Amino acid sequence: MTDHFMNLVNARYSCRDYDPERPVEHERLVQCIEAARLAPSACNSQPWHFTVIENREKLLAASKCLQDSGMNKFADNAGALIVVNEEPATLKAVIAEKMDSQAYAQIDIGIAAAHICYEAASLGLNTCILGWMDEEKLKKTLGIPEEKRVRLVIAVGYAREEKHYNKKRKDLEAICDFIR
Amino acid sequence: MTDHFMNLVNARYSCRDYDPERPVEHERLVQCIEAARLAPSACNSQPWHFTVIENREKLLAASKCLQDSGMNKFADNAGALIVVNEEPATLKAVIAEKMDSQAYAQIDIGIAAAHICYEAASLGLNTCILGWMDEEKLKKTLGIPEEKRVRLVIAVGYAREEKHYNKKRKDLEAICDFIR
Repeated sequence: MTDHFMNLVNARYSCRDYDPERPVEHERLVQCIEAARLAPSACNSQPWHFTVIENREKLLAASKCLQDSGMNKFADNAGALIVVNEEPATLKAVIAEKMDSQAYAQIDIGIAAAHICYEAASLGLNTCILGWMDEEKLKKTLGIPEEKRVRLVIAVGYAREEKHYNKKRKDLEAICDFIR
Repeated sequence: MTDHFMNLVNARYSCRDYDPERPVEHERLVQCIEAARLAPSACNSQPWHFTVIENREKLLAASKCLQDSGMNKFADNAGALIVVNEEPATLKAVIAEKMDSQAYAQIDIGIAAAHICYEAASLGLNTCILGWMDEEKLKKTLGIPEEKRVRLVIAVGYAREEKHYNKKRKDLEAICDFIR
């Protein structure tokens, strides 16, 4: 396998400075969703729906729903916003029993979001996963039914300038035990 | 970027037939955890801890906690089991307000799990994310404190034989809208 994931891991960072002059090619957005479509999920339930906003006016309206206390203003300059809805998961009975205590659909949403970000990184795109939103306002803005849950919005675009961040993370020893 | 994520997406599948004669190199497991360590998370909270079980006896004991109604017997043959705990997330105040209704830590666990599986795929390893477990029994078996939450167990190993599955998924049109 020549495609080494760690190169993509090192290339990806949460981009908060998109080039407003550089739109994202529709075909590349389709490829990002295609990667998410192929993500694994509990019982293959695929509990997700994606709304990809490319239209400038709609994007700005949606972006406003992500902004509070000075947060996320950069989203205005993204080439696209991908709104990630959680859909009801259909699980095997033995697993469904644990659905209330375990968080299968939310974990699956995270897995799918990672697929979008790494496919984007493969294509030279930058992303930022946004967890804060005025969910009610966002659903009204996009005509998403009230009963749906929006879990994430992923900003996608080209960074204004190429950057490389050294990721600040806990040490390996702090997050892992090996039983050998 | 020559490392194309879609090749890894196509190579990865949920492997349920590991070669019991082929152990997994410790260094490769470290690399899988290193990828997860670098995963993004809400407010960089890194709400995760990994217990990597390589010891054969402990692995078999843990594997028993994943089996019910004939499920997951294959886990006995995995080279390693990675137990993924959710740790308390420390979030910025404006985000923490929404912590109860949004599922930041669980989404982050999904993102980290995807990192493990794709780093494994890069290294020629196979994986299967397991969501069903007898959580209490597993925690007792591994000496994980009762108050902790185990969210996933990831089986890692070498497949008995190389396989390629055509992934059964919903069509793109069924999971996505584009607003252009």
